[in-house]
Amino acid sequence: MLCYLNGQFIPRSTAAIPVEDRGFIFGDGVYEVWRVVNGHLFELERHLKRLNFGLGELRIDAPEIARADVILSVAERLLRENDLTAGEASLYLEVTRGAAPRTHQFPAPGTKPTVFAMANRFTPSDELRARGATAITGPDVRWLRCDIKTIQLLPNVFAKQAAAEKGATECILIRDGVVTEGSHANVFGVFDGVLRTHPLNNLILAGITRALVLEMARDLGIPVEEEGIDELELSGADELFLAGTTTDIMPIVRLNDRHVGTGFPGEITQRLYKELRAHLDAASMSAGIGR
Amino acid sequence: MLCYLNGQFIPRSTAAIPVEDRGFIFGDGVYEVWRVVNGHLFELERHLKRLNFGLGELRIDAPEIARADVILSVAERLLRENDLTAGEASLYLEVTRGAAPRTHQFPAPGTKPTVFAMANRFTPSDELRARGATAITGPDVRWLRCDIKTIQLLPNVFAKQAAAEKGATECILIRDGVVTEGSHANVFGVFDGVLRTHPLNNLILAGITRALVLEMARDLGIPVEEEGIDELELSGADELFLAGTTTDIMPIVRLNDRHVGTGFPGEITQRLYKELRAHLDAASMSAGIGR
Repeated sequence: MLCYLNGQFIPRSTAAIPVEDRGFIFGDGVYEVWRVVNGHLFELERHLKRLNFGLGELRIDAPEIARADVILSVAERLLRENDLTAGEASLYLEVTRGAAPRTHQFPAPGTKPTVFAMANRFTPSDELRARGATAITGPDVRWLRCDIKTIQLLPNVFAKQAAAEKGATECILIRDGVVTEGSHANVFGVFDGVLRTHPLNNLILAGITRALVLEMARDLGIPVEEEGIDELELSGADELFLAGTTTDIMPIVRLNDRHVGTGFPGEITQRLYKELRAHLDAASMSAGIGR
Repeated sequence: MLCYLNGQFIPRSTAAIPVEDRGFIFGDGVYEVWRVVNGHLFELERHLKRLNFGLGELRIDAPEIARADVILSVAERLLRENDLTAGEASLYLEVTRGAAPRTHQFPAPGTKPTVFAMANRFTPSDELRARGATAITGPDVRWLRCDIKTIQLLPNVFAKQAAAEKGATECILIRDGVVTEGSHANVFGVFDGVLRTHPLNNLILAGITRALVLEMARDLGIPVEEEGIDELELSGADELFLAGTTTDIMPIVRLNDRHVGTGFPGEITQRLYKELRAHLDAASMSAGIGR
């Protein structure tokens, strides 16, 4: 596989970053993951906007790749040379503050950010979606700037691993008694026909799929409330689902070994997924790679 | 400079880790920093114990370097070949979960941890200590497992940078109205002759120098309370100081542009530093490198 590192297209197996890269030493960087359908970067602009927000919060000078024309040209070559222009793929982009002698404060001005991108084959979990996923709950021990998509992901690693060890797909994180999100997806619930999810603030990531779900729900006439779901309410949810770039819209049919609603993917969840799939398909049919 | 990476001693300028290292992708690793005096690793065992605790919490199989004899032999060569066996130096060791295809959950069993070590010249801040440092306060936005010495350090980077921009040495972190610690040192206060610092729990790192300070205080007959300092109490502190491996014991004489106590390094702070210096000197005179 070919990847992109600081302006070069090189084999991923030999691509390497300096040991003093602040990504490796401090977790001092941000990232994005795009869904790619038939060579098209889904929701290119929204991901770029979030990337630039993160770079701004970290005060890393935006590298060229944070511009649409540059990421498109990098993506085009990565997808083409890795034979990923047809079907589904994902594009991962990471930007760190670069390599510099280890000191907590920012390094000398002029330190060049590290830019790494890779493309991978992606297979949507259609089978799992059809029968519905299982989830557990766990404590949200993350930092208080979850609104920045940084590589400070160890608590997410812990949560996902805890889920995996129980044979579950996801761990729903609880902070102060309230559902925030999953380890790498937002969480939605349906209560008496009303769709609910945690409001945007410093405790959750502003997921692109989350935003799409809210827009699609409004288009479909599904009432929406951006208000946290209390942990104690979870057992009374009619439907629960995850929303994320590679998670799609994934129904949760078992939570902590109890059925959610009927124990089958819910109607509103399925309507929203169909709508998302239509968006993905429409994007994949626009002209040209990454248009 | 020569560094150590996965069993090899190589020039630091060319030492590099795979782009898919989980340290770089997830911040999925732990680290330690030793003070080295005349070739001797100060408090070798306590740092190793903390390292092994962290590896255990992350469930990373301890690499050989987490054993005293191995770290000593690596340190010996790093110090010798980099001409750091006389005077003061620091030794940095980082262990990550290794390189693997990106997925939040743990990678396949058998994935080898990445082990990186480097030694640097270290110059204690004697001048600053003599006149005392300045500090600011700031919000503690870190995650809830600050007791593990991980590379999830972005909030620490933010805090240290905020201090630097105000010309201050350190940012004292406040969570829920209580002083936790600094960006990379523990915080102590003296109130009416009683030494106080945050108790050990998930909100602070169990600093090695913190432990030494508490032991030295007991030896010197200084009363100690392990109880958090309320933010509102800070202005009434007679003395404030930082304690850390490379911070030593550093008096804070100005906080948020107001004098602390008399505005000069306090008596208890100075007594404790003298005692710490005696410990460092004693360690440096024991036999053999790293004994």
